[in-house]
Amino acid sequence: MRKVTIKDIAKQLNLSTSTVSRALRDSHEIGIETKRKVLELAEQLDYTPDPVALSLLNSHSNDIGVIVPDISNPFFAIVIAGIEDVAFAEGYHVVIYQSHDDYEREVLNVKHIYNRRKDGFLVAVATNTTDFSHFKNLHDKGFPIVFFDRIYEEIDTHKVAVDDYEGAYNATKHLIDQGCQRIVHISGPPHLLISKRRLQGYKTALLDHGLPYHEEYVWSTHFDSQQSIEVARQLLKSAIHPDGIFAASDNIAIGCHAAITEAGLTMPKDIALIGFSDLPMAAMLNPPLSSVAQPAFEMGRSAAELLIKLIKKPNENTQSITKVLHTNVVIRASSLRKT
Amino acid sequence: MRKVTIKDIAKQLNLSTSTVSRALRDSHEIGIETKRKVLELAEQLDYTPDPVALSLLNSHSNDIGVIVPDISNPFFAIVIAGIEDVAFAEGYHVVIYQSHDDYEREVLNVKHIYNRRKDGFLVAVATNTTDFSHFKNLHDKGFPIVFFDRIYEEIDTHKVAVDDYEGAYNATKHLIDQGCQRIVHISGPPHLLISKRRLQGYKTALLDHGLPYHEEYVWSTHFDSQQSIEVARQLLKSAIHPDGIFAASDNIAIGCHAAITEAGLTMPKDIALIGFSDLPMAAMLNPPLSSVAQPAFEMGRSAAELLIKLIKKPNENTQSITKVLHTNVVIRASSLRKT
Repeated sequence: MRKVTIKDIAKQLNLSTSTVSRALRDSHEIGIETKRKVLELAEQLDYTPDPVALSLLNSHSNDIGVIVPDISNPFFAIVIAGIEDVAFAEGYHVVIYQSHDDYEREVLNVKHIYNRRKDGFLVAVATNTTDFSHFKNLHDKGFPIVFFDRIYEEIDTHKVAVDDYEGAYNATKHLIDQGCQRIVHISGPPHLLISKRRLQGYKTALLDHGLPYHEEYVWSTHFDSQQSIEVARQLLKSAIHPDGIFAASDNIAIGCHAAITEAGLTMPKDIALIGFSDLPMAAMLNPPLSSVAQPAFEMGRSAAELLIKLIKKPNENTQSITKVLHTNVVIRASSLRKT
Repeated sequence: MRKVTIKDIAKQLNLSTSTVSRALRDSHEIGIETKRKVLELAEQLDYTPDPVALSLLNSHSNDIGVIVPDISNPFFAIVIAGIEDVAFAEGYHVVIYQSHDDYEREVLNVKHIYNRRKDGFLVAVATNTTDFSHFKNLHDKGFPIVFFDRIYEEIDTHKVAVDDYEGAYNATKHLIDQGCQRIVHISGPPHLLISKRRLQGYKTALLDHGLPYHEEYVWSTHFDSQQSIEVARQLLKSAIHPDGIFAASDNIAIGCHAAITEAGLTMPKDIALIGFSDLPMAAMLNPPLSSVAQPAFEMGRSAAELLIKLIKKPNENTQSITKVLHTNVVIRASSLRKT
């Protein structure tokens, strides 16, 4: 296929391309009658200026990239909605990439964003990324990057996260308040910063309330309900007999919820269950799932605002900001024993 | 930020840019020693050829766009995984856009795809799109487009859909087989082709099995669990007292599931419930949700294959293909009365 170009307009009107170009830019060097002819034909031929050619000249594409591990995780979908909310209002187009939690795919996404002249990107790092040089190289060149949710601390740029420690502490404290004595934590992948912080919150809440911390009470899985149901089945068959479960994500909690029901146990009587994120799904379960609400939309908005600041005024942001958003425990029937 | 260009290399080596350019293209006109120097410096400076500049020359970007109403709908996430599976293997990069089921946003997405020189796109049409000229104009210019799931029939290009009629017929027949007499259908937005076809399947199954078709038994909502729970609450308060519900999507069924539980009714005894799509979530509910399985991954694969064919050989595809994939009723506890 072929786009209409300035050359086509010039040829048909028997003008030079530079005259057409200046007429389209409304230059004062071009007469009114010529401008009228050019604009009329441009409209008739459905001519649109070529943003790719323009981006070669002005080096801004007004596109920003966002890389998430998995778009089917509703948490990331809500964060992206927040990013789009700010970006569209500021005249930026958002292009979405998924890493499928895979390092190689993430590297390809980053290269694509750089090579296609996006103005910058927002990223929640893939689970199996341990080498961060693809971010570091671009950051060193001055390319605008903002980390959110799954952040990488070692790069000195803006970051947006929630207070995972606080959320986990309060979730665990809630289970203790409900009378739970054998509280299991099902963590996400252990090397992730969010996993470490949630584990720390769980551990500290136990110790602060006079309960012992047992390493064998900490299980881990991926942030995926299918894999979590398997882990939960094993847990329920084990000798631990938990009376409370703090799951590090709602997807993990959904797997636990199904396994508990399948095993003929009831929530909250036999096991009190609480998740993390408060996805829309949580309230739809039977019984409805308690969860730590994360301000996902707000996280997206904040991250996009910081990125656009970096893009617009790259030199004014010498001080990197790490924004930490607060969480809120939403109590529903899956954990509420005492009313 | 600034990328290293051929000019930088030329300057440092005191060569002309055309010599550097030819050296990088391994031209036979350039001596081995010069090539070695150029390649070494290019590597040292981390020079990468500019794909934007290249795309101005060769008119192929190897990027394809995909527009879906909403990435948080797991059905579309699975379709996209199928698209990526084929596209990556063929050397294409997939860029994801969401319309948020909004016509204006869809038009912007289409413009962006065209202006950023993607090679073509795949689209599931937004719910509130009634003017299709943004597709038609590009299709008339020869721009490669493939419709999937929410297709627009009037444009003569490749399309991939499932047999909605068959799926709906079999779901309704299953409820009849379980002894349901007052089967309500909760449809998606009525003007969508998939809604019309699912309604037709429901209606024909009733009539084929000697049950009357009542218009007041057909309700409708958006493909969204939050909105569906409201509609289901109203349905359960109405004079209809359904003993079976065929929901036009799993998100609608999840809303029904929550409303039925909330009302103190049980599935399948009081109401037998079946959805459409068989999302991963369906098996996690309590009781697990019956559903019509759609081959979402296969839909994505087929659509991507057809698009890449169009891109590679635009003139050989004079005959448009409409691929119709089959569905499969997955029976779980929410509807299974007779074992």
